[in-house]
Amino acid sequence: MAEGINHSSKSLAKTVSEEIINFIINENLNVGDKLPNEFELAAKLGVGRSTVREAIKALISRNVLEIRRGAGTFVSQKLGVADDPLGLTFFKDKHKLALDLIEIRFMIEPRIASLAAMNASDEEIACMTKLCHEVEMLIHAGENHVAKDVEFHTCIASSSKNLVMPNLIPIINTAIALFIDLTHSILKQETIQTHREILEAIKAHQPNKAHDAMLLHLAYNRRSLEKRMLDYNR
Amino acid sequence: MAEGINHSSKSLAKTVSEEIINFIINENLNVGDKLPNEFELAAKLGVGRSTVREAIKALISRNVLEIRRGAGTFVSQKLGVADDPLGLTFFKDKHKLALDLIEIRFMIEPRIASLAAMNASDEEIACMTKLCHEVEMLIHAGENHVAKDVEFHTCIASSSKNLVMPNLIPIINTAIALFIDLTHSILKQETIQTHREILEAIKAHQPNKAHDAMLLHLAYNRRSLEKRMLDYNR
Repeated sequence: MAEGINHSSKSLAKTVSEEIINFIINENLNVGDKLPNEFELAAKLGVGRSTVREAIKALISRNVLEIRRGAGTFVSQKLGVADDPLGLTFFKDKHKLALDLIEIRFMIEPRIASLAAMNASDEEIACMTKLCHEVEMLIHAGENHVAKDVEFHTCIASSSKNLVMPNLIPIINTAIALFIDLTHSILKQETIQTHREILEAIKAHQPNKAHDAMLLHLAYNRRSLEKRMLDYNR
Repeated sequence: MAEGINHSSKSLAKTVSEEIINFIINENLNVGDKLPNEFELAAKLGVGRSTVREAIKALISRNVLEIRRGAGTFVSQKLGVADDPLGLTFFKDKHKLALDLIEIRFMIEPRIASLAAMNASDEEIACMTKLCHEVEMLIHAGENHVAKDVEFHTCIASSSKNLVMPNLIPIINTAIALFIDLTHSILKQETIQTHREILEAIKAHQPNKAHDAMLLHLAYNRRSLEKRMLDYNR
């Protein structure tokens, strides 16, 4: 298979990828901004068009860039956060993985909730309130609320004002959500209740109360996951 | 630029990428195992060779596969953990980023150290001891100890037995290490002392002591980083 891929062009493409990233940073391009076309980039970076094309493909795989049909190449909405960035796909024991991810959530999310209670703006609180409501509507309608649930937790993570959290939390939560989804089980009433408590505490700017509400939310999640695993192994 | 990249083949390649990942999981291939060649994969998955080649390139970008010249395609040592998986390159305020990463370390690493004190095997303790010693040697020799330092923390993360930690910790620590490295400042004596304390506590299987030693290590790190930032902004 090796003959199909040229090595020296591969590593040149890698260098050019890094140069394109530097270009994005130095030119202050933001999410959704358009890049110069292939010809212009090739001229700017002093390399051939085929190398630029190779580099762009690699950056698309890394979710740094995205192509919009007929419109050009843009800085991706996904902010360069790779698909499955932690390589979770490769863990064979999905039950252990789910428990270990909850363990990480226990380390991070209560503190994040208290930071959110300290730092959330009125706009962020309005956004959380909307998402909390949407999750409830989906639960009542018997529809899948996983995506909105992750959005709710991501909104809390953003409002903590820790730069890294909005990129880290969805990775950890989507993976759990996927597992919970696979096991066809939903903690309906506890989710509604504990989400509301988290939201109220953040709204009231009470860090300790937000911390404890998040802890309770996670405790319900872990208990439910452990129960499902018992049922599964029975 | 869009004309350079064929969209339908792109999304077909994406599907084939996922199929190759499933193949790796289902065939129980491990790190370093060889994949079937391009012809065999194309036949197995019922697609053309060029699509297989495209999918393999995407998986190389994601660090799932690696090419060894003249030998073939293998499951990557990098375990599918992407380069810069959290998109940290794109954060412009590196000082704030470094502080926010330390904030995450504070949430995670003391607990990880106590889990390591509970769960580390004799082999893992031997490995940590070796790494702790190597970091000290490098510091005494005035050489860069960042890579070995990250290895030391990764070894602690592995011995916690939380599946996700060995993939998560190096991401967070390398990024900080890089920053510290860029600022040309090293906390020599404090690093030696607090690393030793962490190691001794894990060796003695004392979770609380390991927790507190890690907390102290991070506190020295944060204090030093804040001081550098003050100097920098002066």
